Amino acid sequence: MHNLPDMRNIRLTISYDGTNYHGWQRQPGIATVQTEVETALATVLRRRTTISASSRTDAGVHGRGQVANFRTDNAIPAERLLMALNSRLPPDIAVTEAREVLEKFDACRDAQRKWYRYRLWRSSVKPIFPARFVWHWYRPLEIEPMQEATRFLIGRHDFKSFEGRGSEREDTVRTLFRLDIRQEGNEVTFDIDGDGFLYRMVRNIVGTLVEVGRGHWSREHVEQAMEARDRTAAGPTAPPQGLCLMRVWYPGETA
Amino acid sequence: MHNLPDMRNIRLTISYDGTNYHGWQRQPGIATVQTEVETALATVLRRRTTISASSRTDAGVHGRGQVANFRTDNAIPAERLLMALNSRLPPDIAVTEAREVLEKFDACRDAQRKWYRYRLWRSSVKPIFPARFVWHWYRPLEIEPMQEATRFLIGRHDFKSFEGRGSEREDTVRTLFRLDIRQEGNEVTFDIDGDGFLYRMVRNIVGTLVEVGRGHWSREHVEQAMEARDRTAAGPTAPPQGLCLMRVWYPGETA
Repeated sequence: MHNLPDMRNIRLTISYDGTNYHGWQRQPGIATVQTEVETALATVLRRRTTISASSRTDAGVHGRGQVANFRTDNAIPAERLLMALNSRLPPDIAVTEAREVLEKFDACRDAQRKWYRYRLWRSSVKPIFPARFVWHWYRPLEIEPMQEATRFLIGRHDFKSFEGRGSEREDTVRTLFRLDIRQEGNEVTFDIDGDGFLYRMVRNIVGTLVEVGRGHWSREHVEQAMEARDRTAAGPTAPPQGLCLMRVWYPGETA
Repeated sequence: MHNLPDMRNIRLTISYDGTNYHGWQRQPGIATVQTEVETALATVLRRRTTISASSRTDAGVHGRGQVANFRTDNAIPAERLLMALNSRLPPDIAVTEAREVLEKFDACRDAQRKWYRYRLWRSSVKPIFPARFVWHWYRPLEIEPMQEATRFLIGRHDFKSFEGRGSEREDTVRTLFRLDIRQEGNEVTFDIDGDGFLYRMVRNIVGTLVEVGRGHWSREHVEQAMEARDRTAAGPTAPPQGLCLMRVWYPGETA
């Protein structure tokens, strides 16, 4: 990309119900969120435009605060762009904010901290209204042992055992700033903040904690899983529909 | 139906996301909630079985506490019936309770009081997560004038002006026990209890109140609309997806 003097850098915040999409990332011939946003952008800007996003959320995963950016020489005001995009996007995707940012900003490279929420719904009968956004759990589950096991996960660790297969990174050390678990009514919420996440890391952490909560594993089993640096040592992957990317922080932004 | 001594009367409470259904009532060749429940029942009981329900909710309207009943000579325990039905019902319909009741109970005829909730979502950008369950409202709206106008609706009135066309009743006098409107965050909730509702009456009441809230009509316009006994005197019909049948009360039941 040339640094033309009249190139503007636009930052979008995007919300989507991921149920009907094969994840964020563009793939030929398959419905993805990136494809939908880029298609709407191409119509509005009358030029094919590629966007860079903070996270490649997986198939079925949702976004509330996905951040993306793109460069354009089109002079359309950000507020008009937002409305034009929303009128062209399908009902399950919306741009909630659009604003011009410094030329150097990149939504993928510059992300400093991400907050994911995982929702689990406890009930004997399957949930109807939150069905698209929760993992239905009908077996026994103790919250306290899961909360106690988070001490082996919070902080700076090698999360190799929690990395999904198929998209391995060389550096698997990450820092979790927060891992809060709480139950309110039927819902158990896992709030996880970190400086970055490996492929399927949040869902593998939740799946592992649930093994503790249901009494299959001790709290210390989580510590052993971390030390093993082996995917088979940790628990199963929680299903995608419970997961949502809530917010992404960039340099200079605070809670 | 014969009153055979071994006939059992089973009462079901049913929850459904009405988005994909053409309402409650069975219609040939069309997906309806009643058809789904009766199809599951026929499999479980190995006999075609007809159910009677408290309310024929409209296309796109939801149910949280729809009540229905049917008679059977099958001896299956109610708890096993509930599980068997839920394993056969589609993901957007669930039976939340099943129990044997007195032979004379009829979910339609005996309903004494019904509670409907209507949800409106105020935001400039279309809502993503509650999209299936709210009316998106992006124009100005004042809550207080709507709350004040409810005084012309609560109580015993002839609701002829609020009856939808196509399913007229002879007696259009009904009693509203409660009409609460409150805003919390982006959401405006209308809670309406009454002894019975005419066709589309709740949605016509909400559509009329919104005319007041947006400043098109005065509060007193609602009183005039009621007195006119003419559908054209009241406001438009609010869209179906915001409406949900929350609960139905029968003789002897209290809040």
